[in-house]
Amino acid sequence: MHDIESPVMTNSKTKPASGVTAKRDPGVPPQAGQSQAPVLTEIPGGVTAAKGFRAAGIHCGVKKAKKDLGLVVSGSPASAATILTTNKVQAAPVVLVREQMAKSTTFRAIVVNSGNANACTGDRGMQDARAMVAATAAALGCAPGEVLVSSTGVIGQYLPLEAITAGIGTAAAALSPAGGHAAAEAIMTTDTFVKECAVEFHCGGTRAVIGGMAKGSGMIMPNMATMLAFVTTDAAVAPGVLQTALRRAGDRSFNRISVDGDTSTNDMVALLANGASGAAPVTGAEGPAYEAFYAALEHVLTVLSKMIVRDGEGATKFIEINVTGAARAARAVATSSLVKTAMNGEDANWGRILAAVGYSGIEFDPAQTEIAFGDLPILRKNYVIDFSEEEAARVLHGKDITINVRLNGGNGSASFWTCDLSREYVAINANYRT
Amino acid sequence: MHDIESPVMTNSKTKPASGVTAKRDPGVPPQAGQSQAPVLTEIPGGVTAAKGFRAAGIHCGVKKAKKDLGLVVSGSPASAATILTTNKVQAAPVVLVREQMAKSTTFRAIVVNSGNANACTGDRGMQDARAMVAATAAALGCAPGEVLVSSTGVIGQYLPLEAITAGIGTAAAALSPAGGHAAAEAIMTTDTFVKECAVEFHCGGTRAVIGGMAKGSGMIMPNMATMLAFVTTDAAVAPGVLQTALRRAGDRSFNRISVDGDTSTNDMVALLANGASGAAPVTGAEGPAYEAFYAALEHVLTVLSKMIVRDGEGATKFIEINVTGAARAARAVATSSLVKTAMNGEDANWGRILAAVGYSGIEFDPAQTEIAFGDLPILRKNYVIDFSEEEAARVLHGKDITINVRLNGGNGSASFWTCDLSREYVAINANYRT
Repeated sequence: MHDIESPVMTNSKTKPASGVTAKRDPGVPPQAGQSQAPVLTEIPGGVTAAKGFRAAGIHCGVKKAKKDLGLVVSGSPASAATILTTNKVQAAPVVLVREQMAKSTTFRAIVVNSGNANACTGDRGMQDARAMVAATAAALGCAPGEVLVSSTGVIGQYLPLEAITAGIGTAAAALSPAGGHAAAEAIMTTDTFVKECAVEFHCGGTRAVIGGMAKGSGMIMPNMATMLAFVTTDAAVAPGVLQTALRRAGDRSFNRISVDGDTSTNDMVALLANGASGAAPVTGAEGPAYEAFYAALEHVLTVLSKMIVRDGEGATKFIEINVTGAARAARAVATSSLVKTAMNGEDANWGRILAAVGYSGIEFDPAQTEIAFGDLPILRKNYVIDFSEEEAARVLHGKDITINVRLNGGNGSASFWTCDLSREYVAINANYRT
Repeated sequence: MHDIESPVMTNSKTKPASGVTAKRDPGVPPQAGQSQAPVLTEIPGGVTAAKGFRAAGIHCGVKKAKKDLGLVVSGSPASAATILTTNKVQAAPVVLVREQMAKSTTFRAIVVNSGNANACTGDRGMQDARAMVAATAAALGCAPGEVLVSSTGVIGQYLPLEAITAGIGTAAAALSPAGGHAAAEAIMTTDTFVKECAVEFHCGGTRAVIGGMAKGSGMIMPNMATMLAFVTTDAAVAPGVLQTALRRAGDRSFNRISVDGDTSTNDMVALLANGASGAAPVTGAEGPAYEAFYAALEHVLTVLSKMIVRDGEGATKFIEINVTGAARAARAVATSSLVKTAMNGEDANWGRILAAVGYSGIEFDPAQTEIAFGDLPILRKNYVIDFSEEEAARVLHGKDITINVRLNGGNGSASFWTCDLSREYVAINANYRT
């Protein structure tokens, strides 16, 4: 049933939403013996790119003037999977979604407000989250158990519930297959650009689509960074398989980014799969149909993750750190304030990179370590430093920087994405609440 | 043999070096049943405050003009204990000291240069470190195995060995019981003030002194923060007991501070005990004499630690975080970029504090948590927020801020000391190497 035996990555003729290079150039056929990525093509759109999904984004009054309420609805019951914050301080909607996911794996809608996180709001916060779910269910004519809820914004304040419930009615009336972009606007807080991505792929021979939206680590006024992502697909995927795929793809995307290392009380990734493509159901976490779906999911989450880093507060550079020889060290380099400030200053400060690897907890031989910025070698084995400051300055002057660390020993490898640490980051966060 | 049955803390009439409040006011007698700290009194001075130690600090040419070579010498063989960096990338002097400490626990001298870390310098770096030790032993007429060595400064460059060996001769000729301050100047890099502290105490009925110097986390040009501390005492303490005491006191002082979370390749704390006070030897890690020594040691290390935080790069505020109910959470609050930027902006942003506790990995009930700035309650149980912004602003406008977090559940408690994160920190570190 597969129309492609050796699938390769292709690029759509439409401009990709991500601005991120596709995994493999369309003009480069895979070599014999090379692991082959399934075909996937970026297409325009976000949460309504897949068949059978409608969305809306409106202003209801949580914020002064900007859109603050988003609604995403599937025309038919959809499998659902979620990743929720690991912070012990959990906002009311996170607590409620955890409850709902324990009772059911089939959902119809996701309702999200921005401007107020409904966090640290106690019993009344839980009542308010339930009221959002009830109002959405009433407006859509489905059961409350079929509605996921999410909030982002200021913490420690009660929701303006009347405005929100009225807004839910307005949003339900405005639902449209073209509403994905408005919904993506409605979940923004201090983000400076809308984050959407969609991909088409072949799932058991049938064209299917997966698309999503995210909001990022522009720090949520006033209290913390919240990362939200909502993804929809018209592939048919059994709930357990969906959760397995989401967990794995999340580990390889959202768990590989860092802006400032703080974990929010409201983080949530939710994925709905409604099967509207007509593709045969994916019932196990293996085989070509699963792999095609998984590759598309990971691509969408990776693009959204990188957009979040690129929109990090005060960020002037996007930095990819690749470590060969150990999986754990890339995170230490990415979260080092000293490395991040050096990148901000376009300073080829390899010592800070090596020191961060040194305290990451891995076993390695520093004298065998090599460091390069992109293709430009900086540190060779046995601490041989041999680079032109002019060339290094040219590479570090770019907006996109790749730090390659080769340990020449050990196992595993990992990539991590971060941004630089700028004076602007401090300026933004020093005076947020007041 | 103890002249004081219920020892209490007293203050010297001399101005304490630390500017830090003593543990207990002299005018406040201990209450019945209250745990009683041994008497200790801050006195002027540093590494030469204790009997039988001489020191010197000179300019030898590693730096352009400032003092860059320090020497501390005991008149008689002294017990030694050290704490060395846990970073896997270890500078040559750290590797050599580890070797030396494995062979002997009795030492005569510590030689330290600033301006060059002798890190990432391979075999030649090891040769250079050995040459520094040999030159010091020759100048003092002791064995190379009796000399500890330390370096701090730029990494990846070879030491100017001729200048240093010549300087060692000059420093040996300049040794003086009044040389502690010059030595403390000589170990500075970007520190903005000299860090010294000394304390007198009673050890088995005999007056003894412990004093030390440190250099801090003004980031070492150009590559990383290095924390060095050298402490001397004329108490007589067996090497194993000395190591036990240093490890414990280090955990309660240097391991409770954070400026930016990066761990250096050169960190070293060394403690020499020469017994010149004539006090009876402390041969076990218990009993009044040990407790008196330990209290004095912890006091000196704590004062030096707090000085390092106060001199953190770009720091405008000294912040103490106390968490009651869990030992681990204070570090998470202290290292949160969001908390540190909020303090910089004098913003009563309790949500960031609670969120940091939330991701610290401890178990607790957020609704039971209380947060105060000093004595000013900010967050009460059940998320009741009831404070005057004016009062909070007044408290946060101070140079010294205490954040008190009470979990109302759980065991353990801990303090952690940090500074705010300022635009100046980024400015300093973005352009250090170039």
